[in-house]
Amino acid sequence: MTTARMPMKSSSFQPSPNMMGRLRCATPTRRRSGRWYPEERRRGQGNHIGPLCLPLLQRPVKRSLELHMRVPQATAVLVSVDGTHHPDGRFPISCDDLGLSRGHGVFETLPVYDSHPSSLDAHLQRLEQSCVLMGIPAPMPAVLRTRIRGLLEASSCSHGVLRIQVTQEGRQILAVRPLGRRLDTLRARRLAWPTPPFPPARAKHTSRAGYTLAPAAHDVDEVIRTTPTGHALEGTWSSVFCFRGGTLYTCPDDGRILPGITRGHVLFLADQMTISVKEEAPGPPEPNDSWFLTSSLQGIVGIHRLDDTDQPPMPEPIRALRIALDQHTGRPTAPSA
Amino acid sequence: MTTARMPMKSSSFQPSPNMMGRLRCATPTRRRSGRWYPEERRRGQGNHIGPLCLPLLQRPVKRSLELHMRVPQATAVLVSVDGTHHPDGRFPISCDDLGLSRGHGVFETLPVYDSHPSSLDAHLQRLEQSCVLMGIPAPMPAVLRTRIRGLLEASSCSHGVLRIQVTQEGRQILAVRPLGRRLDTLRARRLAWPTPPFPPARAKHTSRAGYTLAPAAHDVDEVIRTTPTGHALEGTWSSVFCFRGGTLYTCPDDGRILPGITRGHVLFLADQMTISVKEEAPGPPEPNDSWFLTSSLQGIVGIHRLDDTDQPPMPEPIRALRIALDQHTGRPTAPSA
Repeated sequence: MTTARMPMKSSSFQPSPNMMGRLRCATPTRRRSGRWYPEERRRGQGNHIGPLCLPLLQRPVKRSLELHMRVPQATAVLVSVDGTHHPDGRFPISCDDLGLSRGHGVFETLPVYDSHPSSLDAHLQRLEQSCVLMGIPAPMPAVLRTRIRGLLEASSCSHGVLRIQVTQEGRQILAVRPLGRRLDTLRARRLAWPTPPFPPARAKHTSRAGYTLAPAAHDVDEVIRTTPTGHALEGTWSSVFCFRGGTLYTCPDDGRILPGITRGHVLFLADQMTISVKEEAPGPPEPNDSWFLTSSLQGIVGIHRLDDTDQPPMPEPIRALRIALDQHTGRPTAPSA
Repeated sequence: MTTARMPMKSSSFQPSPNMMGRLRCATPTRRRSGRWYPEERRRGQGNHIGPLCLPLLQRPVKRSLELHMRVPQATAVLVSVDGTHHPDGRFPISCDDLGLSRGHGVFETLPVYDSHPSSLDAHLQRLEQSCVLMGIPAPMPAVLRTRIRGLLEASSCSHGVLRIQVTQEGRQILAVRPLGRRLDTLRARRLAWPTPPFPPARAKHTSRAGYTLAPAAHDVDEVIRTTPTGHALEGTWSSVFCFRGGTLYTCPDDGRILPGITRGHVLFLADQMTISVKEEAPGPPEPNDSWFLTSSLQGIVGIHRLDDTDQPPMPEPIRALRIALDQHTGRPTAPSA
């Protein structure tokens, strides 16, 4: 049980023999000096890639993404690109758009309840900040709002998911699709994974393949990035909280994480409900901890299995916080299936 | 002069006052505990983002990309998508393609000389490896070759640049455009930047916005990623070599870098020309070093300014290696302008 609480767990980095056989290096592996990652602490053999950086895809990537969004992909999607509607979800793009060729874009995903996007102002403000950080001309807010309104009016979804994307070329891609089922609890794994200087972690950018690969490779619903000492930063699609000894811990908004909109709501509500809060990255799990995640689509979602350890049920203060958050963000009591 | 050779130079991380004024955090900055990056060693003030992770875009991102490719973007492009030609470079894509929404795709870029793609076999092999690493179904090699041949026959470029991209959805996007002017030498800056576990560094994936932002933010032609101790890993679009004391140093293919095709050619040719080679990540610059980069489009390109220090001209053995590489890869002596 102790090993399950150690940072940098590496058991899932074993490539399948099948993969090994298919991959050959351009040059032989001779030595390595890495220290950060599990894969860098292993030794490859001969001129095979070795188990260095192979994600073992225990389930398909797209399935992994659907899991956290709980959204039926590729069905009943209405797309608006620069104001033009595309009912089949397909639209023309230039091969020169760095949004496609280099993942150079920004996005926001938010729920729509009763045809009203939840926390739209906050999401549009973060979208603008992401644009500045990524060197992308920010869309005019009034134009974007008009297009969002037009899309939602044209859509048949009263409860849905709205995605706003702006590519480096400046294309404004809006998509709305039905709201999926909500997660009750999920499985998560912590993985040491530092914050690179580029793209900035504070930008919600579209260079996120690693974030869809990691949960798929580890066969969990979410991977929680930690520092080398095992202090939790954020999830690949969520903010991370730990309720420990009556205090709520979460990584500060210090440049290493995306400032979550729902994270902000939770900090505000915890203050209202006189729950003690420390913006400090929570260290490795301890007994009697209660860990949970937040996202705009899921609200608060508990973790029933962290690394290899089953977690206790959500304690009363967090259950109350969850209900308060749902009311605060306008989530209907019984969302449509 | 000494400071210029220190790793983790941070002078370019100052955000403009203009940027500072526009950005406000969702929650106040309270503390931080980072140690890896220049931006994490600074202190933010109040509820502004502070100089934490802002890339100071000293020149536009797209201009930065054009610089290294020396390719006139968005002109005379012919695109083939899944075998269908699009002479205007625009084609339909699904909003559900993770290649667009999450940067989940792979690509290769290679020169075409006299209508023949250079080192095509090696590039197709790496493309297939990248697909495996990214959980993307690899295209059938025979089909891909037929489509490449068809595109090159339909194109008017005898000397050009071929780009092959496969998105997570499985779309095969081929683009050919005129070959640009070759770089003689360039300016580079070293920046401490570890290798994240996802996506794997060995995959040539399209989650690369950070790689276009970094040179633009530092106003150089190339940023060289280093370890915390200043040992050079690779560039954002190139492999990195240091000729030191008669020996050629380059980072081993150990999972921390993309195994460069041209890097492989240089190692092969250095062996043929009895130049001593050590696959070790070269440490911080020393006097009398000769640093150079390699890429498929540029071959060998010297560095005339590294960090803040002017570099000596390319020594004779490296000049000879450059000529041998051009012959080996079939580069015409006088490529068309």
